[in-house]
Amino acid sequence: MNCIAPPSRLLLGPGPSMVHPRVLAAMSTPLVGHLDPYFLGLLDDVQDSLRALFGTGNAMTIPISGTGSAGMEACFANLIEDGDEVVIGRNGVFGTRMCEVASRLGAKVVAVDAEWGEVIEDGDVAKALASCGKPKLVAVVHAETSTGAWQPLAGISGVAHDAGALMLADTVTSLAGCPVDVDANGIDVAYSGTQKCLSCPPGLSPVTFNERAMEALDSRRSKVRSWYLDLSLIANYFGSDRVYHHTAPVSMIYALAEALRLIEEEGLTARFARHERNHRALMAGLSRLGLEPAAREGHRLWMLNSVKLPEGLDEAVIRRRLLFDHGIEIGPGLGPLAGKVWRIGLMGESSRETNVRRLLLALSAELDAGPSAALDAADQVYAQSH
Amino acid sequence: MNCIAPPSRLLLGPGPSMVHPRVLAAMSTPLVGHLDPYFLGLLDDVQDSLRALFGTGNAMTIPISGTGSAGMEACFANLIEDGDEVVIGRNGVFGTRMCEVASRLGAKVVAVDAEWGEVIEDGDVAKALASCGKPKLVAVVHAETSTGAWQPLAGISGVAHDAGALMLADTVTSLAGCPVDVDANGIDVAYSGTQKCLSCPPGLSPVTFNERAMEALDSRRSKVRSWYLDLSLIANYFGSDRVYHHTAPVSMIYALAEALRLIEEEGLTARFARHERNHRALMAGLSRLGLEPAAREGHRLWMLNSVKLPEGLDEAVIRRRLLFDHGIEIGPGLGPLAGKVWRIGLMGESSRETNVRRLLLALSAELDAGPSAALDAADQVYAQSH
Repeated sequence: MNCIAPPSRLLLGPGPSMVHPRVLAAMSTPLVGHLDPYFLGLLDDVQDSLRALFGTGNAMTIPISGTGSAGMEACFANLIEDGDEVVIGRNGVFGTRMCEVASRLGAKVVAVDAEWGEVIEDGDVAKALASCGKPKLVAVVHAETSTGAWQPLAGISGVAHDAGALMLADTVTSLAGCPVDVDANGIDVAYSGTQKCLSCPPGLSPVTFNERAMEALDSRRSKVRSWYLDLSLIANYFGSDRVYHHTAPVSMIYALAEALRLIEEEGLTARFARHERNHRALMAGLSRLGLEPAAREGHRLWMLNSVKLPEGLDEAVIRRRLLFDHGIEIGPGLGPLAGKVWRIGLMGESSRETNVRRLLLALSAELDAGPSAALDAADQVYAQSH
Repeated sequence: MNCIAPPSRLLLGPGPSMVHPRVLAAMSTPLVGHLDPYFLGLLDDVQDSLRALFGTGNAMTIPISGTGSAGMEACFANLIEDGDEVVIGRNGVFGTRMCEVASRLGAKVVAVDAEWGEVIEDGDVAKALASCGKPKLVAVVHAETSTGAWQPLAGISGVAHDAGALMLADTVTSLAGCPVDVDANGIDVAYSGTQKCLSCPPGLSPVTFNERAMEALDSRRSKVRSWYLDLSLIANYFGSDRVYHHTAPVSMIYALAEALRLIEEEGLTARFARHERNHRALMAGLSRLGLEPAAREGHRLWMLNSVKLPEGLDEAVIRRRLLFDHGIEIGPGLGPLAGKVWRIGLMGESSRETNVRRLLLALSAELDAGPSAALDAADQVYAQSH
């Protein structure tokens, strides 16, 4: 085993994002036990802070001990029983993944399809719900990391509730980068990940369940298939009983606490404005390089900028040069979008003016464009917004 | 959210154990992407190092992105299908947990019981297997963290194989503290955790599957219930294809790599001898304080020292004083052993002579014994073994 000596990278892909030095330092803090009074107090603070971030008063708001995909699985595993009907929006990798996760857990999945890059329409969800007998759950992805599309939530949650179903939102990429507003949007259940706009290393998945969702959990006819992710057991550790369930990932909780503290110091309004500003500047610059947004106007994510590639561009070669010659990671397209788009993440700490300029300059060089056009376009956006 | 400022603790409980400063420093290393060539190379090294530690040539040897309990669930979820017969040794918390995990996944569980603190006998496993039609799996806990009992494995794996079943071992607390020897002991599947004798923070679970176990996975009639833990999908990320499954917990992998490097530098023989020596010294000292081993002679764990408490001792008060006045964490008894035993972990970095002396002195003071008797007994062991 060699010494840990990674190359220096500017992380502008779909995650992990850049991590603030204070969060890195928090992780190197010596550990206390997972039942130590200090640690239990810290967990209370983390829960409070996550509630503010999600925009919810839900008591059951906790970090699951796994990555964002574990959070997805936790939400479905706790709510779904064999034969439950679940309506899922499928317009990218993560909607597709939700269908697979739900179906493995025994759900009868009704997929609502849209083109990759488009969003799911309320009317299509209503139609799918009408085809069900007794739908249990509607699930959509708030920020589709694979396409860069931003999904409105309030309309769909209204349709879901009218049909007596719970509303679940994947907020992995949106949380801490744009408003999520769980309670205001009528979201019953949401999950996220730490390695996107929270700018914390990957390894935890914040989830939130409201009272209605907890009642659905309490009235299950069968046990949750996953012991590890069973929220009724995990609740006994986060609740006043403090019953041992599994050993909480202490160092990752330290990291999350410090990441949440940075978010509180900046304030959500300023943080969202920063994400929007850097998105606009980047897109203005990329447009000068012939790279146009892949997602529809009005539905473009600030934190995940998906751009269409010109025909004939050997995109893998340019990404490799960006990585090895410039130290910058950006993301390729996935699935049907492979080779057709790039995905440029400006999430959390990655969403900084200097990073936008550094990427535009490196891309200008690799695409044989003059350096000033793209940079000027970005700077014009900054000049207008300061 | 306040600044992270935990009190200083000497962790001598059932985990997490003390973490070496080099491992803490590794976690504060800036991140690279989870598909970065550097990171993929590091994962290869981690896999090699885990193979050496498990004592196996198994290609499928990886860290699962969750704590030890996620590793337990991964092993059962990948092997069990509805109605499969599984024989599980139940002589403590973790055997009991395995029964619960397997049963939620659809297994028909045949429990082989023994008193807490005792070990599972080969003959009892053979009898249980004889009562099955077509047993799929036998599972036992190598190091029962709840009782301090060390379980021999080779005899049971022979009995399991004679019956055509796979052999699974929980090595959460044993790995890197005493020989595990997966291949030599005929273990087909094993899982562990990072927060015990690996002396890495909690958050990852090393698992290993041999060819026979992978064939059982490949010939399943149904999909693995858990998408997150499905090894056939995870294999595509760890294999040459490097297909994205979930975002690997980069910082925790850095920590594990550095912990494995420390283990390689010490050497397994020296490491095991250190664990044995400190166990003997601690037990000699505790005996002078009237605290006798709870597990049977010949079956006592070196890394988890379970001792019987004298009648009438208000153990919770003393543990609280140890924590708050002396900064030392030890573990209480669980389940039927609550109030009857203490569990003192000497795992990985926690297993140091200075820690043994510090605990014995603090305990001598709290139990109103003179300080020299317990210390002298421990030092006598050290004098003999150097």
